[in-house]
Amino acid sequence: MPELRYDPLQHRWVIIATERGARPSDLQDTTKYNHIEHCPFDEGNESSTPPEIWAIREPNSPHNSPGWKVRVVPNKYPALNIGPEGKRIGVGYYDMIEGTGAHEVIIETPRHDLSMADLPPDHIKLVLLAYRERLRDLYKDPRFKYVLIFKNHGKRAGASLAHPHSQLIATPIVPRNISIKLDAAKQHYERKERCLICDLIQQEINTGSRIIFSENGFIAVAPYASRFPFEVFIAPVNHNCSFTAVADEELDRFSHILKKILLRLKSVLQDPPHNFVLNTSPNIEAKPKFSDQWVTLNYDYHWHFEIIPRLVRIAGFEWGSGFYINPSTPEMAAQYLREGKIE
Amino acid sequence: MPELRYDPLQHRWVIIATERGARPSDLQDTTKYNHIEHCPFDEGNESSTPPEIWAIREPNSPHNSPGWKVRVVPNKYPALNIGPEGKRIGVGYYDMIEGTGAHEVIIETPRHDLSMADLPPDHIKLVLLAYRERLRDLYKDPRFKYVLIFKNHGKRAGASLAHPHSQLIATPIVPRNISIKLDAAKQHYERKERCLICDLIQQEINTGSRIIFSENGFIAVAPYASRFPFEVFIAPVNHNCSFTAVADEELDRFSHILKKILLRLKSVLQDPPHNFVLNTSPNIEAKPKFSDQWVTLNYDYHWHFEIIPRLVRIAGFEWGSGFYINPSTPEMAAQYLREGKIE
Repeated sequence: MPELRYDPLQHRWVIIATERGARPSDLQDTTKYNHIEHCPFDEGNESSTPPEIWAIREPNSPHNSPGWKVRVVPNKYPALNIGPEGKRIGVGYYDMIEGTGAHEVIIETPRHDLSMADLPPDHIKLVLLAYRERLRDLYKDPRFKYVLIFKNHGKRAGASLAHPHSQLIATPIVPRNISIKLDAAKQHYERKERCLICDLIQQEINTGSRIIFSENGFIAVAPYASRFPFEVFIAPVNHNCSFTAVADEELDRFSHILKKILLRLKSVLQDPPHNFVLNTSPNIEAKPKFSDQWVTLNYDYHWHFEIIPRLVRIAGFEWGSGFYINPSTPEMAAQYLREGKIE
Repeated sequence: MPELRYDPLQHRWVIIATERGARPSDLQDTTKYNHIEHCPFDEGNESSTPPEIWAIREPNSPHNSPGWKVRVVPNKYPALNIGPEGKRIGVGYYDMIEGTGAHEVIIETPRHDLSMADLPPDHIKLVLLAYRERLRDLYKDPRFKYVLIFKNHGKRAGASLAHPHSQLIATPIVPRNISIKLDAAKQHYERKERCLICDLIQQEINTGSRIIFSENGFIAVAPYASRFPFEVFIAPVNHNCSFTAVADEELDRFSHILKKILLRLKSVLQDPPHNFVLNTSPNIEAKPKFSDQWVTLNYDYHWHFEIIPRLVRIAGFEWGSGFYINPSTPEMAAQYLREGKIE
């Protein structure tokens, strides 16, 4: 069973894969995808994955057979397992939680050779629908405090298979960066009775120079303090705390701006390796009893989407400090992406 | 002038290199070192670097000429500049600091082809002495709240030149990860009047299974909640808050355990790309007036050294969450490094 271990000095949980226990020879990194004879995510190879959890399929097509558009399956090598109770255990000074959670793969299309940028908006909408439905389902389980939905595109961004897919990990804790954001938003709300992210969006609208697109109720900006060159932040302009509450027509509008941004990144930066992450509110059902955390949750958070192109290497400075050097300016990045300038 | 910009949502400062302003074509990443005809760090090429700040030299050898053992020079492409006053400016909701700071390179040896693991302990001691002397000197400047000393070994760990060197960056703020650690240590001290890191070291001694070496007053462990496989933490067993206060004979003892660990990493993991970071207390002289931060500083922090082999790729999950999945166990890593097991 994997363990969640807490670092009391860094205030951070880490998943230790005690079962897999990679030895030195397992830790060879390469810049190429593993060679595979047949891709387990291709249509027709459904039996190569664990049984599907959710799918959008042609009417009457049986589970785990061809005829799907988006398919969600458990990760074959999960970081956390659905089984354990998630017991919390003190280990001397340290804290441990049994590795309960979920680790799923969202296969975005049956086509091996398309990236999300190439999919039509109405197909991207189906992927977003999968995210929402899996979030809603997993948030019924009070063991899971957060569900992180993310994508690794390209080997250098951590993808191990080329076939377009995203992943989700449900965790029995709220991860550190999310906690920091929630605390910031909560403090702001307590002082001002306004949402911090609504305020930041308003500031970006007033400034203008970092806006990439603003249309159909969504805004895409290069954040003022971007950690990485060409980082993109996308959010609904109107307040909405949780992705679980997003309406179908909102997914429709979101899919259009998302496709536009992904296409611009692809052309301006020549299909860069990148990650994206959906940020949403934690699972209210899992709120610790008697805690004053998340009390004002419906007012003080605002779902958003972050895209991080992987263009620069992260070195000792960043690991040691949590402090980043961005060699580009967000204002210039916004201009390139807005105008679609290609060098 | 570079800018330090604050992200109010993530509570994090970022350096934006507004001068360099890397465009898309500047952001090509490769796995090879830049080809250079002559290395600016080699002996005899002293005129290829900015004038030296500090060096250990043969008696009577002139500055910026051959005859040195360790040489410290300004970084030719600094992330922060020594010039600006470091004025703090509000930009709407955002915060900015003029990019004041220092960015220096510690050239560890005149020999291009040796890594730190290959240097004799008495030469490693001279590198550590350079760290201490530069810290002492930069901490005289009340603009600089922290000095981060780190090393990138290998292209995949962010090194751009092969010649063995470390770097330091002096910053007008305390970087986020350091702040988090300082807060944790301060809270622990306030509650218990004991140093958190002293307590953690005691816990490791009691447990035993994560100790790599413990000798001559230093302990090297694989941390309980290691973020990365084969991560190593080294600290003096006896309480010592700041690296500026380390005595020469302590540097001597430290150089021996450091060499031993670097050699073990090199043999067990086949010269892995890695980063290391020195963690020490911030600059007390730069403590904000009337602040209750760092009050108990001499008691509540404990300098330490972290080594991070770069064996796994960091993906969207980690960037989005600050939450890590470690495919190895620290207990196994400690055993491999302790026993020098080579696969």
